[in-house]
Amino acid sequence: MTQTTVTPPPTTRVATGPGPVAATPSSSNLGRLLASCVDRPGIVSAITAFLHSRGANIVQYDQETTDPVGGRFFQRLVFHLPDLAERLPRFSAEFATEVGDRFDMTWRMRDVDVAPRVAVFVSRYDHCLLDLLWRWRRGDLPIDIVQVVSNHPDMAEAVAGFGVPYEHIPVTKATKPQAEQAQIDLLHGRVDLVVMARYMQILSGDLLDRIGAPVINIHHSFLPAFAGAGPYERAKQRGVKLIGATAHYATEDLDEGPIIEQDVIRVTHRSSAADLVRLGADIERTVLARAVKWHCEDRVMVNGRTTIVF
Amino acid sequence: MTQTTVTPPPTTRVATGPGPVAATPSSSNLGRLLASCVDRPGIVSAITAFLHSRGANIVQYDQETTDPVGGRFFQRLVFHLPDLAERLPRFSAEFATEVGDRFDMTWRMRDVDVAPRVAVFVSRYDHCLLDLLWRWRRGDLPIDIVQVVSNHPDMAEAVAGFGVPYEHIPVTKATKPQAEQAQIDLLHGRVDLVVMARYMQILSGDLLDRIGAPVINIHHSFLPAFAGAGPYERAKQRGVKLIGATAHYATEDLDEGPIIEQDVIRVTHRSSAADLVRLGADIERTVLARAVKWHCEDRVMVNGRTTIVF
Amino acid sequence: MTQTTVTPPPTTRVATGPGPVAATPSSSNLGRLLASCVDRPGIVSAITAFLHSRGANIVQYDQETTDPVGGRFFQRLVFHLPDLAERLPRFSAEFATEVGDRFDMTWRMRDVDVAPRVAVFVSRYDHCLLDLLWRWRRGDLPIDIVQVVSNHPDMAEAVAGFGVPYEHIPVTKATKPQAEQAQIDLLHGRVDLVVMARYMQILSGDLLDRIGAPVINIHHSFLPAFAGAGPYERAKQRGVKLIGATAHYATEDLDEGPIIEQDVIRVTHRSSAADLVRLGADIERTVLARAVKWHCEDRVMVNGRTTIVF
Amino acid sequence: MTQTTVTPPPTTRVATGPGPVAATPSSSNLGRLLASCVDRPGIVSAITAFLHSRGANIVQYDQETTDPVGGRFFQRLVFHLPDLAERLPRFSAEFATEVGDRFDMTWRMRDVDVAPRVAVFVSRYDHCLLDLLWRWRRGDLPIDIVQVVSNHPDMAEAVAGFGVPYEHIPVTKATKPQAEQAQIDLLHGRVDLVVMARYMQILSGDLLDRIGAPVINIHHSFLPAFAGAGPYERAKQRGVKLIGATAHYATEDLDEGPIIEQDVIRVTHRSSAADLVRLGADIERTVLARAVKWHCEDRVMVNGRTTIVF
Repeated sequence: MTQTTVTPPPTTRVATGPGPVAATPSSSNLGRLLASCVDRPGIVSAITAFLHSRGANIVQYDQETTDPVGGRFFQRLVFHLPDLAERLPRFSAEFATEVGDRFDMTWRMRDVDVAPRVAVFVSRYDHCLLDLLWRWRRGDLPIDIVQVVSNHPDMAEAVAGFGVPYEHIPVTKATKPQAEQAQIDLLHGRVDLVVMARYMQILSGDLLDRIGAPVINIHHSFLPAFAGAGPYERAKQRGVKLIGATAHYATEDLDEGPIIEQDVIRVTHRSSAADLVRLGADIERTVLARAVKWHCEDRVMVNGRTTIVF
Repeated sequence: MTQTTVTPPPTTRVATGPGPVAATPSSSNLGRLLASCVDRPGIVSAITAFLHSRGANIVQYDQETTDPVGGRFFQRLVFHLPDLAERLPRFSAEFATEVGDRFDMTWRMRDVDVAPRVAVFVSRYDHCLLDLLWRWRRGDLPIDIVQVVSNHPDMAEAVAGFGVPYEHIPVTKATKPQAEQAQIDLLHGRVDLVVMARYMQILSGDLLDRIGAPVINIHHSFLPAFAGAGPYERAKQRGVKLIGATAHYATEDLDEGPIIEQDVIRVTHRSSAADLVRLGADIERTVLARAVKWHCEDRVMVNGRTTIVF
Repeated sequence: MTQTTVTPPPTTRVATGPGPVAATPSSSNLGRLLASCVDRPGIVSAITAFLHSRGANIVQYDQETTDPVGGRFFQRLVFHLPDLAERLPRFSAEFATEVGDRFDMTWRMRDVDVAPRVAVFVSRYDHCLLDLLWRWRRGDLPIDIVQVVSNHPDMAEAVAGFGVPYEHIPVTKATKPQAEQAQIDLLHGRVDLVVMARYMQILSGDLLDRIGAPVINIHHSFLPAFAGAGPYERAKQRGVKLIGATAHYATEDLDEGPIIEQDVIRVTHRSSAADLVRLGADIERTVLARAVKWHCEDRVMVNGRTTIVF
Repeated sequence: MTQTTVTPPPTTRVATGPGPVAATPSSSNLGRLLASCVDRPGIVSAITAFLHSRGANIVQYDQETTDPVGGRFFQRLVFHLPDLAERLPRFSAEFATEVGDRFDMTWRMRDVDVAPRVAVFVSRYDHCLLDLLWRWRRGDLPIDIVQVVSNHPDMAEAVAGFGVPYEHIPVTKATKPQAEQAQIDLLHGRVDLVVMARYMQILSGDLLDRIGAPVINIHHSFLPAFAGAGPYERAKQRGVKLIGATAHYATEDLDEGPIIEQDVIRVTHRSSAADLVRLGADIERTVLARAVKWHCEDRVMVNGRTTIVF
């Protein structure tokens, strides 16, 4: 059984950061439960009976079974519980005992008012990082950006303007293990999500195992694909009419993790290779922001190599 | 309490028509339950306990409450029940007694393998009618088109090619009551849905009350709106960049019923008024087909003047 | 210099076929000129002076040079010329002498009222063929479908309903040269365009050279790409959120010809592999219809491995 | 004849502002000519002969006549002329004499490297203003924002961060004439475009006449329309599935000026009225940015109550 109860740290994060989090009243008393397990009769019944017995009302419920017979069960649930903030630790502990363990569930439960803490990794392309910071400041993302990490010093000033700590951790082939250790030391237990906003280094399987939070990555996508160097230049030579981007959970197998979101933008013969790069940046930041938002609204569950997005 | 159990007529409709219905195996044993009521704790728990007690497994579940406190509860549920076809009459009767009545629910339950019977009303514009017939023949719509009704004889031949009965019921101001009575006599108890595919007559409230099935209508929509005659010509004069269509449930208050779906299509200064008419026809038939499909997949519930679309 | 003047055959094609062609008045007196050549100063000036000297008025003009210095010149022009039908042969001959030869142009000129003659190749998937026939009958495509060719007999009856001749030319590995010769004998000089509507045979370079008309092909496209067998099944396993289609001119190098149009459709975790196949068919027929329409409106010019689409 | 030659001020604006302007090399030698007049044979020929005679090469050309007979002629042309910056004043003067006057044209000519100077008017909603500033800083808008004007002091600090002067000009019913005079004094001759980025005051016809630059406005749009107060709340009550925005040139007749661009965004039953406001802000800023970009790329021409957008 895998269990994650996201509880606020001693001093609640609700008021931190320049972002929109404070706009949400701290008394909404809404919680979210994401859960999955091998399907069998009685799961929904058990979950809803538990909630009912505690006086929790179900506000929104999405459920999906991958196959009517022998499939896997996935569900997302928003519930209203009076005095949620105080009751959540006990409530979730009892859920673990009475429901989670019984069905061997993978699940997590969260107070909607507590914004997930996010670290952003970046190299030298600024479009994805700045777009996340900007949307966060505008109140469009239900997150708290607590740290930026970069293998270059270039963006320190831009990030400072948003009041977010910036850590420059250089990475060379020789120093990669130490650099990753520094990243783990900096972030483990302090963040709920890591976002690779055009971070041009491959994260090792060891780091992914030990960082203690899921990692979302973004990369360009084309029809057809152009693997290797200079993809936009080659897309231009091939005369593509669409360029796209894919956001996915990072795995050791680069660019092969479960896809969260994809989208494309239309280009024409008038678009130069430089235009494609610029339009590619636009679609990358749009798709990444959507994936981060959905993840932090607890809409995304991993199902093997794929995702369920409620 | 409102209850509708859609059960197959003595001779099953699965094999009728040229459409795709027969392609669905008759033994999928999937049922759908749509239900709404005033929200209070315990509804989901009661529904799922009922299903669990009969050995039904929930395959897909969407639920929504319009407000955490004092809202209205809406749910759509797909379940798997062995021997569904034989068991459905008793199963739904027991659901009525044990759950529906208790929560004063509006609900309907359907065997997914039994295609809803649809009548299409049309006047002289053929694009929406032909599009529905065409998609039905191609297997894109989970329906059985059993009747076309028109106040004009023009399309009898085109409809004959699809093997669907065509009833010409002329309507004048003087004969409208008799015409509507003829429509009711023809359709009452024989259809589960009426689609107005550019039927240029207003249906009276009396007919809507007595026809025994919901009615879906389609009309053009613009930003800004152009009420009255010649809307496309006026949209051209105004230089709009988008033209749209709205599908909604018909009510006595013309074009004001609950909206099911809307969409737009882009036009340019190069589009003539005639182009706008043609593009308008395209978007009308697309939006209508989507609304009919969603309704017949039991995805749409009315909530006052609006809809919930799962 | 390459020159193509599309002139009507002795008996005009305007009235043939069930399609929309007759709806266009035969006296619109609109012509179209597509031209390209190595760019140098004075080309537009020479073209427009020629038109002006004959009393032709330019109604629409799109021009593009791939590079301000040393690029290639592409232009599409719609002109109004009184008595176009009678004057076109001499008008185009004079254009050849006075402008085309001088700039070593590739060009073609067409009477807008004369619909291009199209042959459709198909195997066993019917969605692209039927969609073209259907749109043609509805008046959405400015073409005249004069022949369907298939390596299977399956769709003869469906095609007969549209009044189009159907030629069954079986193809085996051994008989491919004879089959292609039969295709050339059937179509050479009789068609202005060949459309591969899911024709599951590779056309040889020899046939492409000798068929006497450009060939448009359609195939599915994914982000990322899934080359080889079972692409939809593999796309499902990979959890893609978009599936797409690409229409391109056929070349010997399969699926690598100049791209005319691409588009995608959104899918979700709820879409089964069978759903992906169905949605893929939808996007394939949409993209193919768009490419055929644009080609036949003389909007598409080949520029090396890419296209200019005006 | 109306003529506007946009020439750089004594000290070129290329290097001012934090924006992307400097990124464009100052030696691209590309110019743009927008022109319209009553159509008659010989216009294109005269324009292109003029350009040819001066050694200018046409890089891109779009032309449109509203009607083959008796219509109005519109054209957009990008040309390459060696030493454009020095030659433009004389070049445009000669164009006026030799072509513009002869055909009684409305036209304007611009050095592509000289960014149009833009003033932004704003009240208290910040989303459109900040989006323009942000895109400008990112290099996505080919403009130079030289002034922000507001009837409120609220956004002075946010604007200061972008290095743009902020002028607070309060407006009351009594002081409106003086306020408008102050706006004219501030901007006349200093800006090429005024953008109303949710400026909640109606500009008088007098100001529009005397400000010396076109004015672009943005407002929300719905299907159907909801005139008057609380449009988002009413859109929610009506259950619309799309909300939109319209960018147009401001005229005395509020919200009735020529439409430049429109777009919509999809909403669902899950979107609250507050969500609609937020999504409406998103679509407003997107549509406004597009309209400003197209205007400043000289793609938009007014044709009576409508626009031609090349």
